[in-house]
Amino acid sequence: MKKGLLIVVSGPSGSGKGTVNARLLQSEEFAFSVSATTRAPREGEVDGVNYYYITREEFERRIKDGEMLEYTTYCGNYYGTPLREAVEVLESGKNLILEIEVEGALNVKRRYPEAVLIMLLPPSFAVQETRLRGRCSEAEDVIQKRLDRTKEELTFLPSYDYVVYNRDGGIDACADDIRAIVRAEGCANKRHPNAYEAYFHS
Amino acid sequence: MKKGLLIVVSGPSGSGKGTVNARLLQSEEFAFSVSATTRAPREGEVDGVNYYYITREEFERRIKDGEMLEYTTYCGNYYGTPLREAVEVLESGKNLILEIEVEGALNVKRRYPEAVLIMLLPPSFAVQETRLRGRCSEAEDVIQKRLDRTKEELTFLPSYDYVVYNRDGGIDACADDIRAIVRAEGCANKRHPNAYEAYFHS
Repeated sequence: MKKGLLIVVSGPSGSGKGTVNARLLQSEEFAFSVSATTRAPREGEVDGVNYYYITREEFERRIKDGEMLEYTTYCGNYYGTPLREAVEVLESGKNLILEIEVEGALNVKRRYPEAVLIMLLPPSFAVQETRLRGRCSEAEDVIQKRLDRTKEELTFLPSYDYVVYNRDGGIDACADDIRAIVRAEGCANKRHPNAYEAYFHS
Repeated sequence: MKKGLLIVVSGPSGSGKGTVNARLLQSEEFAFSVSATTRAPREGEVDGVNYYYITREEFERRIKDGEMLEYTTYCGNYYGTPLREAVEVLESGKNLILEIEVEGALNVKRRYPEAVLIMLLPPSFAVQETRLRGRCSEAEDVIQKRLDRTKEELTFLPSYDYVVYNRDGGIDACADDIRAIVRAEGCANKRHPNAYEAYFHS
């Protein structure tokens, strides 16, 4: 069975990454993995579905023992991808999509160099700003913080393998770009180091 | 206007490269360029359609002056791709497909590093052999020569960017692989060295 591809999708606020990933996950070829967290389950959340709820001691033991593919902290809690969970998805032949921030993305690449890093971007910073303000739901200081954060995030752009722009084609075109990337990476010579031997001896 | 991609497709005898390229060329996104040759036109051939027919002196002058993207000799005649012809296609925004042998492919890559080299292969050497013998049209020594040549050709495999296998999916799947490669290469970060500046100042 051909192993799946580990795909990391990052993108600034307003890039549409959540919607694009949800679109891809409608297809059987793609899967996500359930994250682990130290925060308490909210009403209605189910262990093993929304998250794996584990203690801080257990999370830190897993970090120490190299059992987390990547992790981050937010509001005093740990969030991360259990390595075993990710490997199971990949070995089932499905492509695993991780939606994570730039620092986490680079950690994944260090840990798992076959990962493909994709940055999803609005057509331009000006359009991103318009989109964020157009939502009308956030206070000016929150919007400004997100725009400032984008400038930091994108300094990591050179470490990414691909940039997908959320332009006129919208979500569909972005999802098609990512499907094309997955298909092309499957043909990439660097992923077939034994192609010569395999050709003559299979 | 976005420049087209220069795609070099190589493949051993029996790989189906001619058929795959013909399939791609049915679409407006792809084009080929008319080669130049020093051989005499055959009956019915038209200058500028089948080939540009030029003299040996003119061909050698073009080589010397760097006006050929790649060239080869066959049965005492020169055959090659005029650089100007290739550049015109690419600047029109179409993807240019060159079907050339391994040595020529590597020369193109040296001359034009943005070129994408794709090797089209039967599923295995055993299948290639069966396909060549199945044609019934060639003498045993011709078939043997082609198989021997394949072993030489594929030592160049590591210089290729992609390997596309002509498997069960046949020509359609190969053409889809190449279309995906073109789309993915369009998103490749290495092709957008100024993405950061462009994002904030466009």
